[in-house]
Amino acid sequence: MNKIEVIHTPALLPLYDLKGKVVVVIDILRATSTMCVAFNTGVNKILPVATPDECLMFKEFDFIIAAERNAVKVPGFDMGNSPFEYENPFLAGKNIAFTTTNGTKAIKMAKQMGPEKILIGSFLNISALCRKIKESNKDLVLLCSGWKDKYNLEDTLFAGAVIAHLGNDEFEMKDDAALSAYFLFEQHQDNLEALVRKSSHAERFTLLHLQTDDVKFCLQADICAVVPEMEGEFLVNHTPMASHN
Amino acid sequence: MNKIEVIHTPALLPLYDLKGKVVVVIDILRATSTMCVAFNTGVNKILPVATPDECLMFKEFDFIIAAERNAVKVPGFDMGNSPFEYENPFLAGKNIAFTTTNGTKAIKMAKQMGPEKILIGSFLNISALCRKIKESNKDLVLLCSGWKDKYNLEDTLFAGAVIAHLGNDEFEMKDDAALSAYFLFEQHQDNLEALVRKSSHAERFTLLHLQTDDVKFCLQADICAVVPEMEGEFLVNHTPMASHN
Repeated sequence: MNKIEVIHTPALLPLYDLKGKVVVVIDILRATSTMCVAFNTGVNKILPVATPDECLMFKEFDFIIAAERNAVKVPGFDMGNSPFEYENPFLAGKNIAFTTTNGTKAIKMAKQMGPEKILIGSFLNISALCRKIKESNKDLVLLCSGWKDKYNLEDTLFAGAVIAHLGNDEFEMKDDAALSAYFLFEQHQDNLEALVRKSSHAERFTLLHLQTDDVKFCLQADICAVVPEMEGEFLVNHTPMASHN
Repeated sequence: MNKIEVIHTPALLPLYDLKGKVVVVIDILRATSTMCVAFNTGVNKILPVATPDECLMFKEFDFIIAAERNAVKVPGFDMGNSPFEYENPFLAGKNIAFTTTNGTKAIKMAKQMGPEKILIGSFLNISALCRKIKESNKDLVLLCSGWKDKYNLEDTLFAGAVIAHLGNDEFEMKDDAALSAYFLFEQHQDNLEALVRKSSHAERFTLLHLQTDDVKFCLQADICAVVPEMEGEFLVNHTPMASHN
């Protein structure tokens, strides 16, 4: 039986051992949702980068540069962090250097800890992701990116959705954080949007008067049959076998 | 309107500002429950201490010394951390130096951050505690002690119970951690024991074959009309005015 642990925020990562485990990085609003859309559009590679300054340095190497801080696009960059921007067919075959407030930081922190595998999860690719997790057949860590190291609802909710999706034949919850994520999803699965609209991050979007409805978009299940996975410093698309059938 | 924040584990304390706020330290299984019982029995003062070695040094100053690590009493100490031990009338008027795996550490960490007030909460004193919180009329931080810096269910559940008990006339939830605690309580309020029995800490008790039913005991509401509060280095009993009527 493989064990599932949930980490509510990257600030708690040092308490965990990731060796030999599959880690799924979760940043529902919006980095990991947006990454799924990008690969679905046909992006070649994504390079997660820590800061906007570091990201800018990849411009001369023919990367598209994308940077978001505090939910808005950083001035001077090609792109921000709204999934709608990444549906542009112009991006097919391109490489993107990407930095966001929470998601890319969580990916880079997890990489330092030497897990077996790092996958990118969102509602948009949940079924493909869960197939990949089952194929991998290892202990699983669901790492929520949170908001500036604090707990957030939408990432924990998705961790619960993955636990429910995997079922209990091959996986079991190891800790109270996993149980709480599962209970949150169980309680709100019939109305995810109502819950996420209550979250502090959705409120942040409302305050910013975002034109597009990123919240609604990011809660759609299975519109991208991709599984972004870390390979060296890059994210590439490793769609699991079953989806090629 | 006063704001409520919930901190799921002391590992996240550095992300928060406690200045000017009332902090309630929560360690349902069992330190803060046991402290309520002790004051209800008539204990004079409790001195929270970081380690068993430090605790031992108070023996010669006529303290009762109490130490728990990994859910069991440390050999050589007068007492452990089961609430039943603290019902002994012999303790009336005595002073106790107390160290536990999670609870006393959380109290000492919170104190370093200079909050307005530190109170001790458990189901056993929830109504007296909430009266005291309302009297204080400040922003509120509910600090869960967790288990070795990780999230636990029972402390978060109690944070949710306090939020529900306070109502929304004078207090509002500030963050997603508060919302998640409230949802957890809302979902499980009719069967707290079933939830807590699923927690990893309750499982730990089962493995230890504890003779007394500490879990059931610690989920009783309002059997102690006391509010332990930090005064200098000590916990003393500051029962709020209304209970003297």
